[in-house]
Amino acid sequence: MTGGPGGGSLAGPDVSALPPATLPAAVRLEHERWMRVAIGLARRGAGRTWPNPNVGCLLLRDGQVVGRGWTRPGGRPHAEAVALAEAGERARGATAYVTLEPCAHHGQTPPCAEALVAAGIAACVIAVDDPDPRVDGRGKAILRAAGIALVDGICADEAAWTVRGFLQRIRSLRPWVTVKLATSLDGRITAADGRSQWITDLPARNHGHLLRAQHDAILVGTGTLRADDPQLTCRLPGLGGRSPVRVVMASGAGLPMDSRLLAGPGDGDAPPVWLAHGDALPSHMAAELQRRGLLLLHCAGEAPGDPRPAPQAVLQALAARGITSLLLEGGAGLATAFLQAGLADMFAWYRAGRVLGAGGLPALGALPAVDLATAADWRLQDRQALGVDVLETYVRAG
Amino acid sequence: MTGGPGGGSLAGPDVSALPPATLPAAVRLEHERWMRVAIGLARRGAGRTWPNPNVGCLLLRDGQVVGRGWTRPGGRPHAEAVALAEAGERARGATAYVTLEPCAHHGQTPPCAEALVAAGIAACVIAVDDPDPRVDGRGKAILRAAGIALVDGICADEAAWTVRGFLQRIRSLRPWVTVKLATSLDGRITAADGRSQWITDLPARNHGHLLRAQHDAILVGTGTLRADDPQLTCRLPGLGGRSPVRVVMASGAGLPMDSRLLAGPGDGDAPPVWLAHGDALPSHMAAELQRRGLLLLHCAGEAPGDPRPAPQAVLQALAARGITSLLLEGGAGLATAFLQAGLADMFAWYRAGRVLGAGGLPALGALPAVDLATAADWRLQDRQALGVDVLETYVRAG
Repeated sequence: MTGGPGGGSLAGPDVSALPPATLPAAVRLEHERWMRVAIGLARRGAGRTWPNPNVGCLLLRDGQVVGRGWTRPGGRPHAEAVALAEAGERARGATAYVTLEPCAHHGQTPPCAEALVAAGIAACVIAVDDPDPRVDGRGKAILRAAGIALVDGICADEAAWTVRGFLQRIRSLRPWVTVKLATSLDGRITAADGRSQWITDLPARNHGHLLRAQHDAILVGTGTLRADDPQLTCRLPGLGGRSPVRVVMASGAGLPMDSRLLAGPGDGDAPPVWLAHGDALPSHMAAELQRRGLLLLHCAGEAPGDPRPAPQAVLQALAARGITSLLLEGGAGLATAFLQAGLADMFAWYRAGRVLGAGGLPALGALPAVDLATAADWRLQDRQALGVDVLETYVRAG
Repeated sequence: MTGGPGGGSLAGPDVSALPPATLPAAVRLEHERWMRVAIGLARRGAGRTWPNPNVGCLLLRDGQVVGRGWTRPGGRPHAEAVALAEAGERARGATAYVTLEPCAHHGQTPPCAEALVAAGIAACVIAVDDPDPRVDGRGKAILRAAGIALVDGICADEAAWTVRGFLQRIRSLRPWVTVKLATSLDGRITAADGRSQWITDLPARNHGHLLRAQHDAILVGTGTLRADDPQLTCRLPGLGGRSPVRVVMASGAGLPMDSRLLAGPGDGDAPPVWLAHGDALPSHMAAELQRRGLLLLHCAGEAPGDPRPAPQAVLQALAARGITSLLLEGGAGLATAFLQAGLADMFAWYRAGRVLGAGGLPALGALPAVDLATAADWRLQDRQALGVDVLETYVRAG
């Protein structure tokens, strides 16, 4: 028998993609086991492959892994191409596990679906269909037409989670938005005397840098530039090259031109700095910022004459540039604006075992009154201890 | 061999209490297993045995449980007496597992240590020593003098937790104070329009009633009487008889005499209502409240002339009446006052997956500015899901 588990029995020219429910349980479990390995490979690309999805691919022949691939930084080569290159001739008769439907369009390279056919794989197990209009079933059609056995929907939810930004950008024309907060038990971000460095302890702060590396871009408001003058880079050992694009959202109330971010990325390997601004940016300032190497993104305000860009417009501008996931790092006003607009998808909430009282600044500003009986709720997705602190991840319920 | 595991080999007239570290591992594990059963029995009395501790007792002979007891409501009979009564003649040669050192003082009944001797037990395994000055080693001395083998310190931390209020009252002359909060993720107790019923869902609210049953008394401020006019009873099916003493802390700004609590306990089975007040209570009002059946507790203010009782004075007055555990149910001002005074031992923090923003009322008022580097921290003791909400229990760290 060639191919992965069940690969031989499933192969045949007329076989359509089989949903997992129709598979024998043992075959399905075996597929899930290998797909989870592929998903683990896919995660390695998180935050680095935009505008392309971070995909994982595993090639299995006679129970042996003959190729492993994940989308490379910048989005190319694709995971399938990497895995096929590693497998070489051993790809013939193998089963390919791919976390996203192989692409079908000719770009800088031939489509992955055709490459899998050319390499002679016998079966292909897919987690999530690719809704990109250039793929959207065409990848599977190419495989099917070549007589390759197809199984799809294996670990679909887990795989979709790894490419949630990519899916969000295609479906909603905006990136996935994560709101990062670090608060006391009672939701404060500073002590009563205004000091905020630091609410959480070192393990949580280090994890915050990892969170940066997992997003395509970070967004901060000008208030945060003034208060903290951050660099917003990922400064974990070994992950220095994984800093995301740094985006400043101009508030309309002037710009701290002497802040580190508005000094521009410089000549070295520093990640780009973008400025999302409204109508209020004077042209001499725009020219100066462009001279410093910033990319300027003009975004419409909520209403005509509003000097501040609207959150929706900022997200659209970022998506147009290829950003699929955005981390909101501060401050409270920025997070509140996106929550008010219904444009937050997830909280990454670091919580310290401290109680700071109403004298400290709240993590969020005023939100519109909600009916508690019907208010949109947040569902705990994950929870992990980070030293003495915890990180809770919440996503919108329902 | 008679007695529990190791009972025979440990028995002898000159044996002192053995710390668990000197026991063979298998014997210690066996002791711990049975002690946890006794601790489970002890928990049944939580909130009902004050001023006495809620103790559990298990009698084991030849590997068979021959008696089980826990302190009865009101504090008598003691756990040992209940277990011995159940065992009868089968207590002879048994090992007694008791969560707290047996009492040594003659009260309404003979001391439990003497009762265990008289019943002919062969060995006694004790979790926690009783620091009550009337016991304080005398219980163990009586057992030892009678030639009963002693092991102590088995599951000491777990057992001490079940009688933390009793231990706190003896050591600090005040009850254990639990602050109950029900908040959104960002620490708010109302929506922006002021509505608070309900932040949490039914399972969490029901658990709040269980929390009442597990405490000797509940304390609320007069603001909560005005806002919610609560009954503060435990209204869980089957637990109606376990409502704690209801205590109102007068703020000095008048009393809502038409509230349900200040109407008094009435004639039926309703739990008592006490009023902790300062110097500001007019005598005609005091007379009327006593006529309604309330017990009045005069408590000194923080400073001379302060009409409000000081938290420390309220706790001392409650401890003097025998209260070992107190649940603070509201409002934010009351909790803040106790936190400011350093008189909160634990948070029972119900958290709903909602975000309400700075327009909602905060769970706590202003606290003194703390140095974040040295601020007293709270350690997560327990966490449980209650439907869509969570209950987190925090105790003071260190």
